Amino acid sequence: MIILKDKTITDVPGFTSSGIHSGLKKNKKDLCVIFSEVPATSAGVFTKNKVQAAPVVLDIETIKHEKSQAIVVNSGNANACTGEQGLENAKFMAQKTAQCLGIDEKSVLVSSTGIIGVQLPMDKISSGIEKACSSLSVDGGDDSAHAIMTTDSYTKQIAVQFEIDGKDIFIGGIAKGSGMIHPNMGTMLSFITTNISIEKDMLSNMLKDSIEDSYNMISVDGDTSTNDTVIILANGLAGNKAVSKEDDSYHKFKEALDYVNKELSKMIAADGEGATKLIEAHVLNAPSKEEAKLCAKSVITSSLVKAAFFGNNSNWGRILCALGYSGAEIVPDKVAIFFKDDSDSIQIAENGIGIDFDEDKAQKIMKSGHVIITIDLKMGDYSATAWGCDLSYDYIKVNAMYKS
Amino acid sequence: MIILKDKTITDVPGFTSSGIHSGLKKNKKDLCVIFSEVPATSAGVFTKNKVQAAPVVLDIETIKHEKSQAIVVNSGNANACTGEQGLENAKFMAQKTAQCLGIDEKSVLVSSTGIIGVQLPMDKISSGIEKACSSLSVDGGDDSAHAIMTTDSYTKQIAVQFEIDGKDIFIGGIAKGSGMIHPNMGTMLSFITTNISIEKDMLSNMLKDSIEDSYNMISVDGDTSTNDTVIILANGLAGNKAVSKEDDSYHKFKEALDYVNKELSKMIAADGEGATKLIEAHVLNAPSKEEAKLCAKSVITSSLVKAAFFGNNSNWGRILCALGYSGAEIVPDKVAIFFKDDSDSIQIAENGIGIDFDEDKAQKIMKSGHVIITIDLKMGDYSATAWGCDLSYDYIKVNAMYKS
Repeated sequence: MIILKDKTITDVPGFTSSGIHSGLKKNKKDLCVIFSEVPATSAGVFTKNKVQAAPVVLDIETIKHEKSQAIVVNSGNANACTGEQGLENAKFMAQKTAQCLGIDEKSVLVSSTGIIGVQLPMDKISSGIEKACSSLSVDGGDDSAHAIMTTDSYTKQIAVQFEIDGKDIFIGGIAKGSGMIHPNMGTMLSFITTNISIEKDMLSNMLKDSIEDSYNMISVDGDTSTNDTVIILANGLAGNKAVSKEDDSYHKFKEALDYVNKELSKMIAADGEGATKLIEAHVLNAPSKEEAKLCAKSVITSSLVKAAFFGNNSNWGRILCALGYSGAEIVPDKVAIFFKDDSDSIQIAENGIGIDFDEDKAQKIMKSGHVIITIDLKMGDYSATAWGCDLSYDYIKVNAMYKS
Repeated sequence: MIILKDKTITDVPGFTSSGIHSGLKKNKKDLCVIFSEVPATSAGVFTKNKVQAAPVVLDIETIKHEKSQAIVVNSGNANACTGEQGLENAKFMAQKTAQCLGIDEKSVLVSSTGIIGVQLPMDKISSGIEKACSSLSVDGGDDSAHAIMTTDSYTKQIAVQFEIDGKDIFIGGIAKGSGMIHPNMGTMLSFITTNISIEKDMLSNMLKDSIEDSYNMISVDGDTSTNDTVIILANGLAGNKAVSKEDDSYHKFKEALDYVNKELSKMIAADGEGATKLIEAHVLNAPSKEEAKLCAKSVITSSLVKAAFFGNNSNWGRILCALGYSGAEIVPDKVAIFFKDDSDSIQIAENGIGIDFDEDKAQKIMKSGHVIITIDLKMGDYSATAWGCDLSYDYIKVNAMYKS
């Protein structure tokens, strides 16, 4: 598999996109369309929040159709808690996009992100969709990545390439965070394009599986949003034999898709609201996969752990405490804890008790942009990784003021 | 029932206490002893965290004895994640206190709060216990309340009086917060004294029941501590007929105890690290008690709701979102939301959708020191209340720096 530097969703053959300013936000791009030149096999995973935004309610029905050909996305307004009017507005977005592109409205998926509880300004949306559909381009991926941002400080984009049946397969992805991010999908939108040929059921199950170890293992603030959405469009233009069972092709594609989703997840965690660093919790030798996950998520979700890392405060007791209330059946007296960065590693605790360690070295590691907390439970063979970020003054600043 | 203004644990007949500086903290009181002149029926509830501090491990055994006569508490060091040595040190605290007071060590309960993972300095503890035991006084309640504080900005104390069998019954309580506070008991210590005569099983079951609607319904930061402890000592000096079944006396005492525990819980929530206001979530008409609690706790635990209240940002969508991921089976389209303070009330949402409201009035309510969010689920007959606080810059400041 080759990681394609600075490439994105429109570097996948057959996809164009655009990102424009419709007026939902003051000065920034706020609406995008992603388009496949042929109908694409589609799959999606949506928020588990009981409060589902109108576009989520609509997409859950739309995606039951075999194929989709376009995704229209706005930022600045989540179209959530907006009742019947909200659902009508989401439907209008699909209809308008279909009309501009000359395709069936049942092949258009809709996403929204931004403030909850305010109706969309449909005049702006309508003219915005016209503008976005008329500016689709094979160079439009970056514009799309910008248009879906809310409090994100940078775009999240990725593309990879590999071979199946001697055919070049591409996967591209864009995503956005960066608040209301928590296991079970944050206010997180992720759109994946690929030219592979694959059966719908295969794609759907693979996507569900893939998000479990990627988007569902990140947390910024413990809040699960109303709008979380991951959508993949597979247009089949690579011309490979359609993937229809769990064979070598399936596993090769799955591996690449997992990579794309994990990298986008890490980008979201690292760009959490106010974050100054990416924190990775790596749990080893857990008695079960589920318990490994509970432990890893509990550590990166703990406000006290997060605040300690912001202050470069090597307070490992808070990590052990978070393991203790995670719900996993751990044996505290067995736990070993290590801090690592890209170049160094230091053990902090052994058998559940602190050990003497070089505080300067611990400080150096904690001050790096990507800190790995390795937790060895010494109980079994299962492991899991979760990603989060520190909790800083700027998280408060952003969320006390910004109405998303 | 009479609420006794400015009274505390030592205003209950037969109890003395003290609070002194032992040297665990730089300049502040950090060690206290609470003493009953006669052995008292005792009950305790302790953290559900799998990682239990040494004094918690010890107390769970000690409290199985029928009676207890003293509680020794230190702040500044939690004696948690300290292994065998930690347990020996906790036992020493009981032995030393028993020796100084001339009582059995099995009648001494021990609590600690502060930094995790560091061994107690036993020389300071030892001389501190001598000092505390020699300065017991009927005026010592306030000193005790000070000595158990960590990041608390003020003491939490209360006392009430009522009659059973024509006898004057008193209940006094002191407690401390103010970080690692979350349903299932925070780094929260609470010590209750009373002169009622009551059988141990009755007292124990009543306490377990009482904490469910008080300490277990508060959250400051979502972290459940290793040291959470609520202990009650009932010395029987009131001379009432010992409460031995769920009769009128039982219910009268239970009502008073619930009041004491709820008021202490509210004080802890209001003084959460960095808090500028107390937030009360009042959930009405839920389909079950459990779901009412899930909803109330989810709202006051949400970082986004908390940050919004810090900024006086009337972002009710975050409240509905928190209900949606609470795990309760709510119907979003039925939900009504109101903001209230001591003098005003305003409806914000109806049928899950925002309604026009007077933003100035909402602002005025949000800026009060005690905001009540009333949530009507319109599904059943159950209600629940939870208490929390806003999330401010100072929470980060305290926790990035302070090693507790």
